[in-house]
Amino acid sequence: MSERKKTTIVLFSGDYDKAMAAYIIANGAAAYDHEVTIFHTFWGLNALRKDSDIHVKKGFLEKMFGKMMPKGADRMGLSKMNFGGAGKKMIQHVIKKHNAMPLPDLIDMAQEQDVKLVACTMTMDLLGLQKEELLDQIEYAGVAAYLGDAEEGNVNLFI
Amino acid sequence: MSERKKTTIVLFSGDYDKAMAAYIIANGAAAYDHEVTIFHTFWGLNALRKDSDIHVKKGFLEKMFGKMMPKGADRMGLSKMNFGGAGKKMIQHVIKKHNAMPLPDLIDMAQEQDVKLVACTMTMDLLGLQKEELLDQIEYAGVAAYLGDAEEGNVNLFI
Amino acid sequence: MSERKKTTIVLFSGDYDKAMAAYIIANGAAAYDHEVTIFHTFWGLNALRKDSDIHVKKGFLEKMFGKMMPKGADRMGLSKMNFGGAGKKMIQHVIKKHNAMPLPDLIDMAQEQDVKLVACTMTMDLLGLQKEELLDQIEYAGVAAYLGDAEEGNVNLFI
Repeated sequence: MSERKKTTIVLFSGDYDKAMAAYIIANGAAAYDHEVTIFHTFWGLNALRKDSDIHVKKGFLEKMFGKMMPKGADRMGLSKMNFGGAGKKMIQHVIKKHNAMPLPDLIDMAQEQDVKLVACTMTMDLLGLQKEELLDQIEYAGVAAYLGDAEEGNVNLFI
Repeated sequence: MSERKKTTIVLFSGDYDKAMAAYIIANGAAAYDHEVTIFHTFWGLNALRKDSDIHVKKGFLEKMFGKMMPKGADRMGLSKMNFGGAGKKMIQHVIKKHNAMPLPDLIDMAQEQDVKLVACTMTMDLLGLQKEELLDQIEYAGVAAYLGDAEEGNVNLFI
Repeated sequence: MSERKKTTIVLFSGDYDKAMAAYIIANGAAAYDHEVTIFHTFWGLNALRKDSDIHVKKGFLEKMFGKMMPKGADRMGLSKMNFGGAGKKMIQHVIKKHNAMPLPDLIDMAQEQDVKLVACTMTMDLLGLQKEELLDQIEYAGVAAYLGDAEEGNVNLFI
């Protein structure tokens, strides 16, 4: 009985470069026929946000979080040398120059390769994010589901 | 012979949100009957500090580190949007509102569930932290003990 | 047939303290006869830079990245309490005082213990780093090689 290997990534970070690393590893593992899950929690949820304004009812604090956090992968900043967005622009420029894939394309590719994208429901509550604001065709789950995936694989990363 | 699964987390970060993620995963894994270890190193040691002033003899640099680092889990800041503590207050507020657990409660729960909390002795030396300053009923060990735990499990995270 | 255990670390971070943690774990695992790989990507590549000025032909953006990023392990800053380098100096001071090893020595030791040091070629391209600028006797590879190493081991960390 041959079983597919599992790769499970917790994406906690809301940084463009760290999310790139997560999605590059995920896409690579999917290409090697691993079963791959990215579990988005805390700031990592921002990678799953739609980049348009979605109108949903929210409390005051939730509205503030919603406004302050980047709307979608393309608006996230770098973990280092961001310089108010200038470093991020430089990276996007060299990505294009070297025919590498920017983050939104990496996410599209992951969805095409059936990487399971999961949004952590507990931290969605904390940050006041609602399903309408996140990408379509993702899953919703909590830490129990994450552990169920992780304990059967050996490439388990927290990014 | 059935053996318990092992989950081993290195908590390097001194951020409130990252430590929350570590303890939520640890408590979840303990609830699923994993043998769980959190190995606190570098800034992660601050999560184990008592929040009162403990008088111990220290050199000058060690005193400075002691003063500058947060005294205990409740005083740690966020990795993102901390805004001098305002973002942290917002998170604590929404945690309460959603009946989620703040970090100090997550740590208590971990101790009740027999999660093994370990302080890295080498980095305690570097940062000048002494046993009297840390929570009771934790263990003290080095990288060798960490590897002994980690190599037998497959959920191994560095947070 | 006894097989050596594998430890595989992705070093994404360009922080002195995080790189220290990565190399301490790597050296520990090598001492326990694990097969150890550190895969340096993004800012983690800076730990492999030579500390002298190497003259290579580069485009404008690549030159800028090259100038702004630290030249080698010894010039990297702390992830917390760096204070423009003052915190870093404090750490280096206490490392010396406690007879611990500074980062450049940890890297030398890793090379002596046959820890496989790999530079991620895709992010070298993005950041404009060339082989001449990196340490001798390291390997060059991409995400496929990383996954090949990682999927056979169980201590897999992203730092």
